[in-house]
Amino acid sequence: MKICIVGLGLIGGSYAMGLSLKGHEVYGIDQNIKSIEYAKEKNYIKEGFIDEYHILSKCDCIILAIYPQAILDFLKQHSHLFKEDQVITDVCGVKSSFVRKATLLAGKATYLSHHPMAGKEKIGIEYADASIFKGANFLLTPIDSLHPHAEEVLKQIAKDLEFGRITTISIERHDQMIGFTSQLTHAIAVSLVNSDQDEDTVKFIGDSYRDLTRIAMINDTLWSELFLENKEYLLEHIINFEKELDILKNALKHNDKDTLKQLFNQSTQIRRKMEK
Amino acid sequence: MKICIVGLGLIGGSYAMGLSLKGHEVYGIDQNIKSIEYAKEKNYIKEGFIDEYHILSKCDCIILAIYPQAILDFLKQHSHLFKEDQVITDVCGVKSSFVRKATLLAGKATYLSHHPMAGKEKIGIEYADASIFKGANFLLTPIDSLHPHAEEVLKQIAKDLEFGRITTISIERHDQMIGFTSQLTHAIAVSLVNSDQDEDTVKFIGDSYRDLTRIAMINDTLWSELFLENKEYLLEHIINFEKELDILKNALKHNDKDTLKQLFNQSTQIRRKMEK
Repeated sequence: MKICIVGLGLIGGSYAMGLSLKGHEVYGIDQNIKSIEYAKEKNYIKEGFIDEYHILSKCDCIILAIYPQAILDFLKQHSHLFKEDQVITDVCGVKSSFVRKATLLAGKATYLSHHPMAGKEKIGIEYADASIFKGANFLLTPIDSLHPHAEEVLKQIAKDLEFGRITTISIERHDQMIGFTSQLTHAIAVSLVNSDQDEDTVKFIGDSYRDLTRIAMINDTLWSELFLENKEYLLEHIINFEKELDILKNALKHNDKDTLKQLFNQSTQIRRKMEK
Repeated sequence: MKICIVGLGLIGGSYAMGLSLKGHEVYGIDQNIKSIEYAKEKNYIKEGFIDEYHILSKCDCIILAIYPQAILDFLKQHSHLFKEDQVITDVCGVKSSFVRKATLLAGKATYLSHHPMAGKEKIGIEYADASIFKGANFLLTPIDSLHPHAEEVLKQIAKDLEFGRITTISIERHDQMIGFTSQLTHAIAVSLVNSDQDEDTVKFIGDSYRDLTRIAMINDTLWSELFLENKEYLLEHIINFEKELDILKNALKHNDKDTLKQLFNQSTQIRRKMEK
């Protein structure tokens, strides 16, 4: 396929790397000349563009790897270049706030949003690494019935990047679940690290603290957008989490060993089912 | 050295494995004949005992790898076997509740408590693995000035098991810090998993959820003891964490993007310093 990736950051760069390796003809668009030069030098892309967009009309698939708020602007500006049989997609971590509008703006092309559930606590194409997708969850989020051609294109991309399970769900269901598994976890990690009141903590950490707080290294611009665009679901999940923590806190206060053990057994059972 | 390990579970078994490999003469005591047979078969120990304790008087170092509440009972029952120049230690995750008493019960022997900051979400010697200690934090927790011989013995063990940084601290400071880096993280992981209200969550998880919740698979007997024995510090840490989460929640409620970004920047800076 001829594929154009808009936004050569960590995720866009990793897509470019993985898809080029699998023999696709990959092009890149980015505002940053250095990202384009880097991508060319590493053979992640065949050609890159900063302010020249005609490549968009020549590709089978356009992957928007930019922030949610930038997507609608981009689509508006370039909708005259989109063609029938083209598939446009994005990699955003929230969907409800823009996918319906994006679908309209895609015009003749078919818009099919997806979400690659993988990443790194780094920013920029220098950290691109296609292996992060291996075995990861891939979520397809159509707004109504799946368009067969677009589904085929996205599934091919998922396959070529070696994703694991592909799940098709509505954008609302996506945002509800991602609010829990992704945004709540980031909210917790950030709050845990920020509640650290000691200079010497590093001397007392084991793998558990390291694993739990890795995602507290977080891209502030991207994640503040994601949090606010999924505010309602995220608030609901935070409140449910706080209720559970309160149960544990009260058991502790009242020296209630049985309740503690019961909570530990419950979490062990639920979590064990999720082992790869 | 001649070393006797009391309790051949995951940690005791991993110590036996690693110390035998480094040429020490390791003996084991356990109530479970199967654990002893397994340890002998794998050459983790030279000999093992279920209800015969004379080996205790023949060793240079006795490592108690049993639950906090069992330690004092064990010391009481066998204090007549302890000798001068012997070093007795334990691997417990809390210290204040028993180390002073243990030191008295050790009689002629020198008691020097320590804490290996490594583990696995598994129970039993079948999962023993000495490589978990490689590079990990090793905490020495004397109750007053360090006894030079005991310090030397423990540092040799830390070196042979390939631990990283060795830090010497009081038992109170230990419990305060471990309440934060270890017990709070477990409380959070357990509560997060228990707040999961969906059957299909596994389809929506990425590495962040996996990493954050791995320790929700937890040994209920051990950890309910650890939590309750460190109750005061742990409650304090939970409350501080809840305050931070509230700040984030309120920023979200009021669409306060600047505060969100500031929280993300703060956590990124603090956490980045902890990278290995």
